[in-house]
Amino acid sequence: MSDLERLIQLLAKLPGLGPRSARRAALHLVKRRDSLLVPLAKVLTDAADSIRPCSVCGNLDTRDPCGVCTDPKRDDSVICVVEEVADMWALERTAAFRGRYHVLGGTLSALDGVGPEDLSIPGLIARVRGGPVKEVILATNATVDGQTTAHYIADLLADCGVQVSGLAHGVPMGGELDYLDEGTLSAALKARRPV
Amino acid sequence: MSDLERLIQLLAKLPGLGPRSARRAALHLVKRRDSLLVPLAKVLTDAADSIRPCSVCGNLDTRDPCGVCTDPKRDDSVICVVEEVADMWALERTAAFRGRYHVLGGTLSALDGVGPEDLSIPGLIARVRGGPVKEVILATNATVDGQTTAHYIADLLADCGVQVSGLAHGVPMGGELDYLDEGTLSAALKARRPV
Repeated sequence: MSDLERLIQLLAKLPGLGPRSARRAALHLVKRRDSLLVPLAKVLTDAADSIRPCSVCGNLDTRDPCGVCTDPKRDDSVICVVEEVADMWALERTAAFRGRYHVLGGTLSALDGVGPEDLSIPGLIARVRGGPVKEVILATNATVDGQTTAHYIADLLADCGVQVSGLAHGVPMGGELDYLDEGTLSAALKARRPV
Repeated sequence: MSDLERLIQLLAKLPGLGPRSARRAALHLVKRRDSLLVPLAKVLTDAADSIRPCSVCGNLDTRDPCGVCTDPKRDDSVICVVEEVADMWALERTAAFRGRYHVLGGTLSALDGVGPEDLSIPGLIARVRGGPVKEVILATNATVDGQTTAHYIADLLADCGVQVSGLAHGVPMGGELDYLDEGTLSAALKARRPV
């Protein structure tokens, strides 16, 4: 198989690219050899050498422990538990949270045979028991699996003497009531607040 | 800037990927270090060294002249003129054409300041005059710029003693009349054939 065919095949494995768009991307790369192909090859090689999971929180970074875990300005007393690294990055973009994180690496799922030992739940419990943690925010997705996992962790943390909280549910900013599902609307109604 | 940020920035330059999907692709790559990141880095490095434009037809290949230009089984008497390498590959996938190709590298465009000297039109004329060519198929896109370019080339080839043809226009296979534009439908009507 030629380099070009192998390039197309590998690009097609990226999320958001299929066989057709991978061919287009490969052509785009080959036509922009010096401005895009060579730099991308270099940064991928660098990333393969440098980026690894953080042994504390599970974030991906060039350092271990990662930049978030080693930042002295962050609050050690709050840990935010998320499913995936992408969720952690999404929360980081808000700049609304200055505590530490813990990436589970997925959710509990009986159907897919994912049990607590497959996620970094033991590591989380050890961090909570061994550190100055006062609050754990369970920021798993608002899906069945995410909420099941959150409840499971909340049960485990019940006798650790920490406060356990979850993200608020409600109307998203800019959301129109007419387009929202009943679950979100009823959650927003139940959690209504004085203006 | 970290390796991860640079990776996201470069991936976002690929067609079909924006900042958000580039972040997802970068995460996907970093999480699949050995199965995807390292092989992709290697094939990109290989491709940067090996793939170059064919000096005869403009195709991109690891050889110069390219595999299509050097294939002894192909018919030297027909040249199919296309705008981009992607168009050539699309025609190759049909396996319906066994002649040679000529990639223009774009279309004439007064607005963007693209003149005949910016495309490989002189090279095409030289190939037609210097070789055993009997027919030139102008397979530029059915857009205003594509058709303008085709007419310009047809004029240049008028005194070269070769037959000049274009792709047929009509109803695409599987196409429903109700969803077709008027231009295509009227072209299909004009070019109607006995069943």
